[in-house]
Amino acid sequence: MIPSKTQIQNTYDSIRSLVHRTPVLESQSINTLMGAKLYFKCENFQKMGAFKMRGALYAIQSLSAQEQAKGVVTHSSGNFGQAVALAAKQLGVTAHIVMPENAPKVKVEAVKGYGGRIYRCASTLEAREATSESIQSNTGATFLHPSNQLEVILGNATATIELLEQVPSLDAVVAPVGGGGLLAGTALAANHFGNGCLVYGAEPSAVDDAFRSFQSGKIQTNATANTIADGLRTNLGTVNFPIIKELVEDILLVDEQEIIDAMRLVYERLKIVIEPSSAVPLAAVWKNKVKFQHKNIGIIISGGNVDLTKLPFLK
Amino acid sequence: MIPSKTQIQNTYDSIRSLVHRTPVLESQSINTLMGAKLYFKCENFQKMGAFKMRGALYAIQSLSAQEQAKGVVTHSSGNFGQAVALAAKQLGVTAHIVMPENAPKVKVEAVKGYGGRIYRCASTLEAREATSESIQSNTGATFLHPSNQLEVILGNATATIELLEQVPSLDAVVAPVGGGGLLAGTALAANHFGNGCLVYGAEPSAVDDAFRSFQSGKIQTNATANTIADGLRTNLGTVNFPIIKELVEDILLVDEQEIIDAMRLVYERLKIVIEPSSAVPLAAVWKNKVKFQHKNIGIIISGGNVDLTKLPFLK
Repeated sequence: MIPSKTQIQNTYDSIRSLVHRTPVLESQSINTLMGAKLYFKCENFQKMGAFKMRGALYAIQSLSAQEQAKGVVTHSSGNFGQAVALAAKQLGVTAHIVMPENAPKVKVEAVKGYGGRIYRCASTLEAREATSESIQSNTGATFLHPSNQLEVILGNATATIELLEQVPSLDAVVAPVGGGGLLAGTALAANHFGNGCLVYGAEPSAVDDAFRSFQSGKIQTNATANTIADGLRTNLGTVNFPIIKELVEDILLVDEQEIIDAMRLVYERLKIVIEPSSAVPLAAVWKNKVKFQHKNIGIIISGGNVDLTKLPFLK
Repeated sequence: MIPSKTQIQNTYDSIRSLVHRTPVLESQSINTLMGAKLYFKCENFQKMGAFKMRGALYAIQSLSAQEQAKGVVTHSSGNFGQAVALAAKQLGVTAHIVMPENAPKVKVEAVKGYGGRIYRCASTLEAREATSESIQSNTGATFLHPSNQLEVILGNATATIELLEQVPSLDAVVAPVGGGGLLAGTALAANHFGNGCLVYGAEPSAVDDAFRSFQSGKIQTNATANTIADGLRTNLGTVNFPIIKELVEDILLVDEQEIIDAMRLVYERLKIVIEPSSAVPLAAVWKNKVKFQHKNIGIIISGGNVDLTKLPFLK
């Protein structure tokens, strides 16, 4: 049930020449504030600005030549749409990207720039799925899921393989959890490549479905999704949840103001541009300082595609 | 007259354990836009957020034990004050920092945080010099100049030593020029460690004293200093200008809007936080695309200490 070390290593061998080996950054002032050593794995510097490039590449690579010839389709309000568009372009495959009307303009423009074919729809899951299905039946394109697909999870795992090569002695890694694809991949890599390295999910309290799912052992959903961490508004799935349940140590909740404060800290001290979702793991470490005292902690910075005119800590 | 390769190598050996080896970042989309390969040396990730840490460390290391015991003093509206405060702290030396009334609050707070003793004065060069001299005569502290001092220039050179280790095949390096200490250091390192690597200075048209000095062969000054690149409002000096005159290929001027556009591009595509001065070299390459076509170009990102509430491209 849990993918093997060989599967993950093969995934990395397959995509490594097509992705950036992103740097790991540290900040003495953040370390002092946290009472721990934090290592930020900067996937905001990844191609198209987010870790999602890794999963998208591997998912498309895993298709047969016949499937690749018919193209791929996904629905995404953001990073996964960009990732599929760019990965498909790199691999010479047609990408159909369904984007809700309220998707950030910068992300729509980016998908266009990568040569993706864009289909706008209402901003409901139903509308997105209906549009995707219609494209699938018209073109024969293969649907790619942003988080609940094994190949995507395996691709995501490669960020933490690299992190553990760059900083071998990590006591823990903290990743944001929304759809669960990044957290599941992080947990797989830490389990197979870490040396007792624990994995924590970090989630906004406003969309605490992963926390409740983890507690109850059954997938829960959110009634509302009012968080600034727009990448984390989605729900866990049947492919990633069993991995999370098995391999993740705990899921830590943070409030909106804690996310905003952590985001400001990253901009001011680490000097990098991140999206709100990427601030959630630091917020979780900050809130749980005692638990992480004196530890070596990896922080997955998931992406940097943000509307700079709407930075929440400047309001 | 021109410091030797050995001097620069010794400087690097002396400070290397005390500074970060900052990463070099690339962006495919920026490369496509420029028609060249750009390698950004990210000194915004340096300790205290700027390359100035390097020069400050070496300048203090170069003092005798007796001199170190009496402390150091400098006047600075920004990064050099922070650099001296932190370098002095690391080396166990007292730092007296004179800061003008209009210095950004974030920089004053940082100097305080590093344990520097702060002296506020009027925002004129005369007031800054008078205050510094009074501290010197009261304490016996040694004055450190932010740009026109050999040890500071040698320390600055180490950023480009690293860059050339990280990317050996550079055709050119572009550094911002204000006081001239960074450009002189960059030119020294490129001359001794590069393989025919040319060095360009990039300067705001609004404060084009370095350009006019370079053209005329004599140090010129500015009547006004109305540029958003607040780190580049100062003038060349008698120590750095002979090095610049001898080793720099050309000085390229850019307008304010070009600086703002380049700054936005760095935030959006490279996903890093930089101060306006750091956008000036990219603006110069952008403006001179034909000259740099198909070249491998190093860009010195000088620092990231910026007031995030006042990003000029968000106005």
